[in-house]
Amino acid sequence: MDIKDVSAGSPALARYEEEALFQGAWQRPALSQRDRSIVTLAALITRGQTDALVFYTRYALDHGVTPREISEIATHLAFYSGWCNGTAAAITVGTVFAERGIAADQLPPASPNLLSLDQAAEEQRALTVEQMVGPIAPGLVEDTGAVLFRDLWLRPDLAPRDRSIVTVAALITSGQFVQIGFHLGRAMDNGLTRMEASEMVSHLAYYAGWPNAFSAVPVVKSVFETRAE
Amino acid sequence: MDIKDVSAGSPALARYEEEALFQGAWQRPALSQRDRSIVTLAALITRGQTDALVFYTRYALDHGVTPREISEIATHLAFYSGWCNGTAAAITVGTVFAERGIAADQLPPASPNLLSLDQAAEEQRALTVEQMVGPIAPGLVEDTGAVLFRDLWLRPDLAPRDRSIVTVAALITSGQFVQIGFHLGRAMDNGLTRMEASEMVSHLAYYAGWPNAFSAVPVVKSVFETRAE
Amino acid sequence: MDIKDVSAGSPALARYEEEALFQGAWQRPALSQRDRSIVTLAALITRGQTDALVFYTRYALDHGVTPREISEIATHLAFYSGWCNGTAAAITVGTVFAERGIAADQLPPASPNLLSLDQAAEEQRALTVEQMVGPIAPGLVEDTGAVLFRDLWLRPDLAPRDRSIVTVAALITSGQFVQIGFHLGRAMDNGLTRMEASEMVSHLAYYAGWPNAFSAVPVVKSVFETRAE
Repeated sequence: MDIKDVSAGSPALARYEEEALFQGAWQRPALSQRDRSIVTLAALITRGQTDALVFYTRYALDHGVTPREISEIATHLAFYSGWCNGTAAAITVGTVFAERGIAADQLPPASPNLLSLDQAAEEQRALTVEQMVGPIAPGLVEDTGAVLFRDLWLRPDLAPRDRSIVTVAALITSGQFVQIGFHLGRAMDNGLTRMEASEMVSHLAYYAGWPNAFSAVPVVKSVFETRAE
Repeated sequence: MDIKDVSAGSPALARYEEEALFQGAWQRPALSQRDRSIVTLAALITRGQTDALVFYTRYALDHGVTPREISEIATHLAFYSGWCNGTAAAITVGTVFAERGIAADQLPPASPNLLSLDQAAEEQRALTVEQMVGPIAPGLVEDTGAVLFRDLWLRPDLAPRDRSIVTVAALITSGQFVQIGFHLGRAMDNGLTRMEASEMVSHLAYYAGWPNAFSAVPVVKSVFETRAE
Repeated sequence: MDIKDVSAGSPALARYEEEALFQGAWQRPALSQRDRSIVTLAALITRGQTDALVFYTRYALDHGVTPREISEIATHLAFYSGWCNGTAAAITVGTVFAERGIAADQLPPASPNLLSLDQAAEEQRALTVEQMVGPIAPGLVEDTGAVLFRDLWLRPDLAPRDRSIVTVAALITSGQFVQIGFHLGRAMDNGLTRMEASEMVSHLAYYAGWPNAFSAVPVVKSVFETRAE
């Protein structure tokens, strides 16, 4: 994604990219550039935009997202945005890691020591899913527990807050509004502020398209309203 | 997208493409081939199908869509279908422009003189969005006004009717039905006829998939019902 | 999609692919590996993931899906997941056919003898669509009858049960839940068991993403509830 090449098809878009996007939205203080980088990676991976992902992986590294975090984002989104989006992302970020001299020992191990499980919250989640999904898709219930909530979500190299940001960004990007409630609540439990959540929506207008951002607003609103703080 | 290559995987699909699509749907008089080209470009860009976009950009040029219009379509969809779909489209149409000897001075300038704003309609729109979105995503409200409705939508090289067609086509293609009401109404205010709007849905069955076209029908129906003409 | 390349970006994802996906979900007896291959191809084509499609086309051939069936899947999804997903898929599977020495005479002819039409069911379907869609999009009604239900669906080289599986998988993958009812009912009329339908959802959690699988559950549940068996 070279700005010169964009200009060959649309000088206007090259201008908007500079003025409205990079000098505009990316500079708003309501969300750090590091967090914006994570949100952007999540949107691109969810949409399978591997060309742009090369540029934005470099950009994320330059803005303080670590190789370990980027690797975990690709892994996480294999589950939350479709397997082959995750593998394509892993392959793509791998090429950027190679280009930057980031070696295998700087990536999260395949099987690290996991964070400790919040047993009560997990039992509550498992019970809800068992009741709702169990009679229809027992295989899905099994994998959701064993692979996602008792393994993937406990991997230590992406903080729970950031893992939730990635998940919420993927849900907004793919228009999966029904499941935002649970995950946005979890994100805020893990430290995401209202201002940050709000600005995620505004930022995603660019990377997921204006219609997705507008459709996310009432869902985010209803999550905010159900929370005391 | 060479028809010979399609045939290597599916001789049947090559036949359908010839008979049902190009000799069938594309020939129906309810929508001009020029407008069908615009709708098709919007669908492909929204779906990130840059390979097919090369073929259909040439096709659009052959059917009277101007380079200026094509450039504006890519620019517009950066906002309405996700930024990196827009930049990928700009890069792709740029390669076709080069191949056709279309020079930079045949493209819209980055900052042209804008169409005049319908102050009353814009104030009404801004008020509605402020009330609905303002408390949740103030950054989104700001960009929607300053960048979209007071800038992008006023660019002169794509007629308001055509800009609305592009927007509605993108919304149908991405299954964003909630926002079709506003934009289809706007398209019809700007001159799109019922017959043309209907045939857009039928045309998009091919390029956005049958399920999206069927899902669009009740939404289009309700827009038609709320209009006097 | 080489597992070594995935590992370069995420050793963890390479592990999950081996343990959770190929040694896990793919081995569950509730759905045959042949059917899983069909479901997976449908998901990848619907998402436009042509890189992964190369790997999974080989995999499908190795698990007993015939070249004729694979060709028909690409053809079918041109209509159900957007034209250029179908043509891109046909081109991609064509390269795998060439690599495997599968010649043109092993593919379905462009115009085979069609299966016989269930006249009563087709009249009922046509009537419903005419009433619902006719006043809004007559072109769509025409093509849905002449091209889809009186031609595509009657092509003999993909069994009606399998054609329905492909359709339902595409609808779940693209989040088109409104239309699953009709097509899942049809799939079960054509021999898909409850256990197989359930496991399709669990399998698609991987290839269409967890959120799509979860969103499909209540829809599948309501279809199960309306059926006597």
